[in-house]
Amino acid sequence: MANWVTRLDDRSLAVDSLACVGLDPDPSLMPVDSVIEFNRAIIDATHDLVCAYKPQLAFYEALGIEGLEALRDTIEHIRQVAPDVIIVGDAKRGDIGSTATAYARAMFEFWDFDVVTVHPYLGGDSVAPFLEYEGRGALVVCRTSNPGARELQDIRLDTGSGERGKMVYERVADAVEEWNVPGTLGLVVGATYPEEMAALRRDHPSLPFLIPGVGRQGGDVYGATRAGANADGRGILVSSSRGVLYASSDPGEYADAARSETEKLRTEINAALQELSGV
Amino acid sequence: MANWVTRLDDRSLAVDSLACVGLDPDPSLMPVDSVIEFNRAIIDATHDLVCAYKPQLAFYEALGIEGLEALRDTIEHIRQVAPDVIIVGDAKRGDIGSTATAYARAMFEFWDFDVVTVHPYLGGDSVAPFLEYEGRGALVVCRTSNPGARELQDIRLDTGSGERGKMVYERVADAVEEWNVPGTLGLVVGATYPEEMAALRRDHPSLPFLIPGVGRQGGDVYGATRAGANADGRGILVSSSRGVLYASSDPGEYADAARSETEKLRTEINAALQELSGV
Repeated sequence: MANWVTRLDDRSLAVDSLACVGLDPDPSLMPVDSVIEFNRAIIDATHDLVCAYKPQLAFYEALGIEGLEALRDTIEHIRQVAPDVIIVGDAKRGDIGSTATAYARAMFEFWDFDVVTVHPYLGGDSVAPFLEYEGRGALVVCRTSNPGARELQDIRLDTGSGERGKMVYERVADAVEEWNVPGTLGLVVGATYPEEMAALRRDHPSLPFLIPGVGRQGGDVYGATRAGANADGRGILVSSSRGVLYASSDPGEYADAARSETEKLRTEINAALQELSGV
Repeated sequence: MANWVTRLDDRSLAVDSLACVGLDPDPSLMPVDSVIEFNRAIIDATHDLVCAYKPQLAFYEALGIEGLEALRDTIEHIRQVAPDVIIVGDAKRGDIGSTATAYARAMFEFWDFDVVTVHPYLGGDSVAPFLEYEGRGALVVCRTSNPGARELQDIRLDTGSGERGKMVYERVADAVEEWNVPGTLGLVVGATYPEEMAALRRDHPSLPFLIPGVGRQGGDVYGATRAGANADGRGILVSSSRGVLYASSDPGEYADAARSETEKLRTEINAALQELSGV
């Protein structure tokens, strides 16, 4: 199996899309009762438009064992109808030693994700078990777009020399380069700070970026795409969840509405890229 | 329901124990095949000796849906045989917005943990949903004992004034004080650096500390207990997993061996405390 970064690139080229749909089933917003019925309808309506799906594990865990059974069936359905789509397990795990190894086993052997999100705080040996599965890998949380992100991520480090130090999140990105085996690691970078994203892209030209938080979370697709894309105009997963999933609350309309929102997202991304390349 | 910190203190006093047993079922080490049979035997053999149990979610997730069913049954069993024991969900979750809310719902409403471990990297609003359940709370990962811990946790921060700044992990502990509602938050502090733990205790006299990694991970019970205990000689959960669970590989002996190891852990902790108080 080729590495997931190459497979993502192939898929993005094949369907001309850097769009990722987050599969975050929330019973209080879903127009139907069944999570698997809802997810299947969303997937059937959108899979030819996306490079990736991103199930957010929290939403399945909140529904207990039944929710996790729906997650298992959702992944199986994606593999059946769109075997080339990358599946990102948005799990944000992070632990050490035998526990980290057990999480990697869960994510790749049981759930069959291509790549999973992880926390950086415990250092390189906490990420290492996610590099040991052929073709799989991890996206390390680097810069988030929530109000509290600045509390720790934006503290400046002491260089010891009187020179201006890097921020914590920049140090995390540098560490990910050190930990990386090409084709395995990438960064999670929130959409709301395009200038910071552009600086991260300059410093890390080859790492894939997962860009969550466009749509309902207020991120700007145009700015994030232009800031995050690599020299080939790819290398990003621009992800929308609620804006796609809950575009309509009508049980007879929501799948079509999700398709329309996904098409719109793909078009916005591609328009930003075309302008960037001067075409 | 009283807050979990008070309930932990009451339990520690009632059974004269600061010992916590980590429930990390690993089929390659277990002397029996069934996770729930194994956990029930361990719990039945040790519950009068502990203030807390700490299931590590990774080990259940690695076994898929069946593993999670065993986790559910394990928690139910603890509630039946030892209703006053604190159950720590060692999940190390960390996300934002509606996702953080969904994780809190999973941890408290579905799994029924008293307190869960969380990551600090996303800031105060990522921890806030865990403070909204009466009597429950979170232990924030502050200082770990793995080789990679120093990569990010031990970077010194720039004060901007030329004065010596704090380390990232010290800033995390300060942030937890800011986020805290008394009786809800605590810190996870690895056992292998007693001097750093003693400094954290001086700066944070009232936060509970979860101290994992004694036993097989090489942490020193004596040093960690003396460094971590609060002014009352309590306020710590000293946790051992593999050293207790896998003390014997004999199916007829392992429960008794786990009891012996748990008694030994409790005795070591209490001996360190007695010496500390000069008794």
